[in-house]
Amino acid sequence: MARSQETETHTPAPPPRQAPGTLGVGMVGYAFMGAAHSQGWRTAGHVFDLPLRPALAAICGRDRAAVDAAAARHGWAAAETDWRALIARDDVQLIDICTPGDSHAEIAIAALEAGKHVLCEKPLANNVAEAEAMVRAAEAAAARGQVAMVGFNYRKVPAISYARQLIAEGRLGPLRHVRATYLQDWLVDPASPLTWRLKREHAGSGALGDLGAHIVDLAQYLAGELLTGVSAVSETFVRERPLLAGASAGLSGSADTVERGEVTVDDAAIFTGRLASGALASFEATRMAAGRKNALRLEINGELGSLAFDLERLNELSFHDHTEPAATAGFRRILVTEPEHPYLEAWWPPGHGLGYEHTFVHQARDVVRTIAEGAPPVPSFADGLQVQRVLAAVEESAAKNSVHTPVPSSS
Amino acid sequence: MARSQETETHTPAPPPRQAPGTLGVGMVGYAFMGAAHSQGWRTAGHVFDLPLRPALAAICGRDRAAVDAAAARHGWAAAETDWRALIARDDVQLIDICTPGDSHAEIAIAALEAGKHVLCEKPLANNVAEAEAMVRAAEAAAARGQVAMVGFNYRKVPAISYARQLIAEGRLGPLRHVRATYLQDWLVDPASPLTWRLKREHAGSGALGDLGAHIVDLAQYLAGELLTGVSAVSETFVRERPLLAGASAGLSGSADTVERGEVTVDDAAIFTGRLASGALASFEATRMAAGRKNALRLEINGELGSLAFDLERLNELSFHDHTEPAATAGFRRILVTEPEHPYLEAWWPPGHGLGYEHTFVHQARDVVRTIAEGAPPVPSFADGLQVQRVLAAVEESAAKNSVHTPVPSSS
Amino acid sequence: MARSQETETHTPAPPPRQAPGTLGVGMVGYAFMGAAHSQGWRTAGHVFDLPLRPALAAICGRDRAAVDAAAARHGWAAAETDWRALIARDDVQLIDICTPGDSHAEIAIAALEAGKHVLCEKPLANNVAEAEAMVRAAEAAAARGQVAMVGFNYRKVPAISYARQLIAEGRLGPLRHVRATYLQDWLVDPASPLTWRLKREHAGSGALGDLGAHIVDLAQYLAGELLTGVSAVSETFVRERPLLAGASAGLSGSADTVERGEVTVDDAAIFTGRLASGALASFEATRMAAGRKNALRLEINGELGSLAFDLERLNELSFHDHTEPAATAGFRRILVTEPEHPYLEAWWPPGHGLGYEHTFVHQARDVVRTIAEGAPPVPSFADGLQVQRVLAAVEESAAKNSVHTPVPSSS
Amino acid sequence: MARSQETETHTPAPPPRQAPGTLGVGMVGYAFMGAAHSQGWRTAGHVFDLPLRPALAAICGRDRAAVDAAAARHGWAAAETDWRALIARDDVQLIDICTPGDSHAEIAIAALEAGKHVLCEKPLANNVAEAEAMVRAAEAAAARGQVAMVGFNYRKVPAISYARQLIAEGRLGPLRHVRATYLQDWLVDPASPLTWRLKREHAGSGALGDLGAHIVDLAQYLAGELLTGVSAVSETFVRERPLLAGASAGLSGSADTVERGEVTVDDAAIFTGRLASGALASFEATRMAAGRKNALRLEINGELGSLAFDLERLNELSFHDHTEPAATAGFRRILVTEPEHPYLEAWWPPGHGLGYEHTFVHQARDVVRTIAEGAPPVPSFADGLQVQRVLAAVEESAAKNSVHTPVPSSS
Repeated sequence: MARSQETETHTPAPPPRQAPGTLGVGMVGYAFMGAAHSQGWRTAGHVFDLPLRPALAAICGRDRAAVDAAAARHGWAAAETDWRALIARDDVQLIDICTPGDSHAEIAIAALEAGKHVLCEKPLANNVAEAEAMVRAAEAAAARGQVAMVGFNYRKVPAISYARQLIAEGRLGPLRHVRATYLQDWLVDPASPLTWRLKREHAGSGALGDLGAHIVDLAQYLAGELLTGVSAVSETFVRERPLLAGASAGLSGSADTVERGEVTVDDAAIFTGRLASGALASFEATRMAAGRKNALRLEINGELGSLAFDLERLNELSFHDHTEPAATAGFRRILVTEPEHPYLEAWWPPGHGLGYEHTFVHQARDVVRTIAEGAPPVPSFADGLQVQRVLAAVEESAAKNSVHTPVPSSS
Repeated sequence: MARSQETETHTPAPPPRQAPGTLGVGMVGYAFMGAAHSQGWRTAGHVFDLPLRPALAAICGRDRAAVDAAAARHGWAAAETDWRALIARDDVQLIDICTPGDSHAEIAIAALEAGKHVLCEKPLANNVAEAEAMVRAAEAAAARGQVAMVGFNYRKVPAISYARQLIAEGRLGPLRHVRATYLQDWLVDPASPLTWRLKREHAGSGALGDLGAHIVDLAQYLAGELLTGVSAVSETFVRERPLLAGASAGLSGSADTVERGEVTVDDAAIFTGRLASGALASFEATRMAAGRKNALRLEINGELGSLAFDLERLNELSFHDHTEPAATAGFRRILVTEPEHPYLEAWWPPGHGLGYEHTFVHQARDVVRTIAEGAPPVPSFADGLQVQRVLAAVEESAAKNSVHTPVPSSS
Repeated sequence: MARSQETETHTPAPPPRQAPGTLGVGMVGYAFMGAAHSQGWRTAGHVFDLPLRPALAAICGRDRAAVDAAAARHGWAAAETDWRALIARDDVQLIDICTPGDSHAEIAIAALEAGKHVLCEKPLANNVAEAEAMVRAAEAAAARGQVAMVGFNYRKVPAISYARQLIAEGRLGPLRHVRATYLQDWLVDPASPLTWRLKREHAGSGALGDLGAHIVDLAQYLAGELLTGVSAVSETFVRERPLLAGASAGLSGSADTVERGEVTVDDAAIFTGRLASGALASFEATRMAAGRKNALRLEINGELGSLAFDLERLNELSFHDHTEPAATAGFRRILVTEPEHPYLEAWWPPGHGLGYEHTFVHQARDVVRTIAEGAPPVPSFADGLQVQRVLAAVEESAAKNSVHTPVPSSS
Repeated sequence: MARSQETETHTPAPPPRQAPGTLGVGMVGYAFMGAAHSQGWRTAGHVFDLPLRPALAAICGRDRAAVDAAAARHGWAAAETDWRALIARDDVQLIDICTPGDSHAEIAIAALEAGKHVLCEKPLANNVAEAEAMVRAAEAAAARGQVAMVGFNYRKVPAISYARQLIAEGRLGPLRHVRATYLQDWLVDPASPLTWRLKREHAGSGALGDLGAHIVDLAQYLAGELLTGVSAVSETFVRERPLLAGASAGLSGSADTVERGEVTVDDAAIFTGRLASGALASFEATRMAAGRKNALRLEINGELGSLAFDLERLNELSFHDHTEPAATAGFRRILVTEPEHPYLEAWWPPGHGLGYEHTFVHQARDVVRTIAEGAPPVPSFADGLQVQRVLAAVEESAAKNSVHTPVPSSS
């Protein structure tokens, strides 16, 4: 037992006052995101006081044996091989979409039209037109009391959520700079194979949609304002990669005979932009930064202070209070593990940190509460669409010699 | 979706080959440790390929309403108010002891005698005599195929486990220094109340048993050798604290009239020691280090290299390879999130860190595998007893003017 | 005495074999840069084995009393009030120019034409035309054996110099990304006064020339290749500031009556670019990043490794070797204080770090050696011109809606 | 030019109001410490406004050729081969002792008796008896207006000096813990030769006197109180090392025939102690911590806050203000480079850090001012004696099975 502050009079998590109803969840997709979402749905009700208890009703995938195995592994009560059948189930009230981006729109719109709530992974869609259709469906469904949310899970990191709170309270004053990078390195090796993530028809874009979508969302979420325009450059450093089939046949073949295919998405995208207030922003999304595993880094500077964050140290937030006397001022490392911090009321004593997957537990909590309370969904499909518009402007600017390209307003 | 390396040919966690049997768990205690262990038992089977699936059979506590609420909250199928009844249940094969130290011996011995496996929180007992009795019971039970393990969960931090592996491989060469601190600050405020943790009759000792037990175990575990003797000093800085009752009545009373009681354990203990190889070790356990929330810090120096770790950044391990050319040598920050790292084969892609509670998931995995495979338990009750002997030597030295006090060998 | 490895057979700095000749230095300007350069000239010959011993012959400034005081303070043998008189002195062989950028060209060209060597602070000039004229003068002088160098002193930080060495050796492989920021905060306060540095006619530009020039030079120096084009955005957040006169009269006047003047340079400039090899680069120069005092940060990612540097921790270099096994790979913190590291052969034992001003000691060493050895000057006026062309392209792009703007080649 | 805040109305270092007199310095020893002290004496008057300008009058060493070379290299006007002749010089008012500890007492006492001021490197002497004799000589000399100071140069690191100021102001409240380590690694290699520093007759002790003296002094200086007793363990891990002669003959001899000699000092010493207030302290001094080059690390915890420092990042001070709300509290990294910080009024703009050698510039400043102002010397020979008594108590405790050993009071 490491540290225990609990006493007879203080129980960390009070017992629920009455047995809650359930929210039947049906999830499509069971790869990395499916595993992470499963963890979120399984855990949220055991940690937080929820108005509805999530039930892992059914999981859906095309391969019967694989989806059955995934159901067993991740704790789902049933398995479907057709997402339309999943939507049709009576024990499912929420469809959780964890598939590649090219199927988001079709599944989400069908689910909403069938009266289900929807949680959809980001990026919301592979292009603006699909995202717009999704928003229309969400708006129609909202009038019927349905909730549609997009999975910008990093908003649910306590340090990020607390940073938003500090900015909203005015602790930074007028903003001057936002700089955001999301650096990974899993494509540094030119021999890394050509997966669906490297094909435009499935993934929509490369680092831009996968990583850039997160930092665009976070920059705007934290700043509390939107980008008005961007100027971008992008690059595909390794233009051909081994086909997966060739890779698996590699034992018998020589390197010369490995079949290669074209990479049709970006390896990296870097862009600058302006926020509505006039603050300057810079962004970099790449999968080619050797040694950076998950370096989502944010820094925001204002007239009264600054904040900095690094996802590789997700329990920490750096805060500089510029109103302090200069002699004692400095970036302080806040361990965002105090009971006063967002989401922390239900977790461990100070200093006992959380991990990546907890963002999905928090997301599950927020989705359940939004549904139960009839609150406006945050982040909504409209938020997802707006990010999609930024990504589209980035691609347009990159194609047009980096010229500053406005982001259409959401209205 | 942050990062996804999964491809059609690479599934992060392969499905179990056949439905496993179950291991019925009965847990005593439901405060901080109870919540953490519950999370471990609930999650392990959904992440790791286990030979037995843990079943949260029953939870036990003295207060009926409270234990029922805890069962509902943490996902236990039943609730008992008498630990003897828990042990007697047919659906329970393992007793998990999460109570204060003064009840460990009685419960553990009864459970072992009843044919159950046991996982017991640390410190193993409140004194050496109790721990010895527990070891005798464990040895007798081992002959019947039962497992008894002690909950030194920090061995299950992947970075710690990997550090052990590097040392065992000889990467540090002959060891020279081990320095270990475990710094917290929750007793800095003299107005913090007098809980059971501050009374010797319940807690055995203060920072020494709560925090010192961890760093003594880790130092020996990592070094792969035992302490031969120690020299210690300890202190209780705040000798009286408000009684809990007085604290809760505080609204109507003045500060002068708050009733106070005596603190009968240490606030801090610092000690030096020698390992069997002659390496020097230093230890500090305190709850009075303002600003340090969970600063379990370890550094080990050998002739060929060094390792450093900080629990507040538990996904990182610092490694200095002294065989590198001096110009490029330096402590490298290893993100212990690669699939090659211990426990990581089942988790997220590189850089997507774990948290404190995952130590309990890993512990659950290891307990289940030990039971299923009939392997020797690690850490065993004998390991817990040996740590208890070190703690006793620390207390003896502190009472005898810090004179070097041998640690009796375990045989 | 902290650490001493010296022995009877190992003297840290061997004595000079013979009395060297002298190099008479005449310095124009005595503010911040003048003080720093003085420190460099005074110290270099006492630390390094130099072929010529620098003599602080004369200092020059317009105000007689002030320049006399500066001479006494900084150790100069004489003081002049007219830079032409300084150039004319027989005891001066090198003119060191530490004035604002608007006087660089005139002084440097006159000095070169008078047969003197020249060291000129950066940015080389306030515009490309002036810089081109300076390069022409330098080329003509080179034919006469004269040296002309530009003061990119940060190349002389041992960590930077060593980073260049590692890259030149191929330790990073083909480069993918360079990211460079130079963040300061001394203009965050809108009440900070309107100095010459905020007027275009004296300073040329704002953060761009002052800070951006450094990171453009360093990015290209480290990468070993040039920028081919840039896309930029810049901003002046605080467009009017108190006049200095008004500020000094502030005791009697109210805040309302403080006279204000227009800021005619940028507060911040951010830009992206491409290097000749196709690597992507990003840059940010700002004086509005609250809490960042001197955060010149560089990171370079290649196929085989990465390097990172932060001027606020100038004795450290972070190096990730991507050819290491993944399980032990990570950014290592190299303390660049080993005798094998550049410039370190003459300094203190490992771990005894250097400071900001040592860049000027190293610069003095390199200038003296270049003169004595007749080696090509590095960095040369041509290097300074090339940086000026990048800055001009940045300004052009910022004025043209961020469109990608080529950097003319130097030939 | 990196950053410039200077304006016409703000000159960083005001000119001296009148030409100061001089203080003739005579230095004994010219190895590592001699080089560092020379840098201090040469520079102090050019940076700080001093009442007396230090003159590097004469340097002294036994070897004529070597001392002449050292004089030329380090800027001394004359060279002596007999320290008695140095003391006798009329142009010398201060004797600066940079020799091994076994000659400190004789030289210092002779210098004081000859009417000279004295600055003596630490540790003050090789044993308590010598140090007591030195204090007696210093007291007698003080009555004649002479100054005797000991070279605990790390007190002059601005971050350390500022930490002392914060503690003196009560920002930490009552102290609970001091932990101090000084880790180096230059003896890790068993093949490192047997220098005078490894022989008791010259060096007095090993890591204890060389490194431990610093951290004992700093702990007491920062806390503002003295150690009352200690409990210690020390070790010599490598008991024989190659003789220097054998090492230099190594090219022709095989490893087997290298002559070895006995190491007669400690490689490492670790000890605990109590301060007068009851705060606990721990210390570790070692030259066997692979990868730690100059890791003098201090942390002090009090009821209201904590401070932490690492000499490898000497421009930084970590400060935790425990009176802050928990949600925004955390260790802040103060860059101790603001004009408000100690010694910084004369140096560079914020963020432009200092290095190791600046401690000697600051020491020179303080010595000169103490002499000119007739102020009590700090740190005095009495301070040096008190540290010597702590070191003696450490050795006594280590020899007596670590038993707690009182430190005699200084009176």
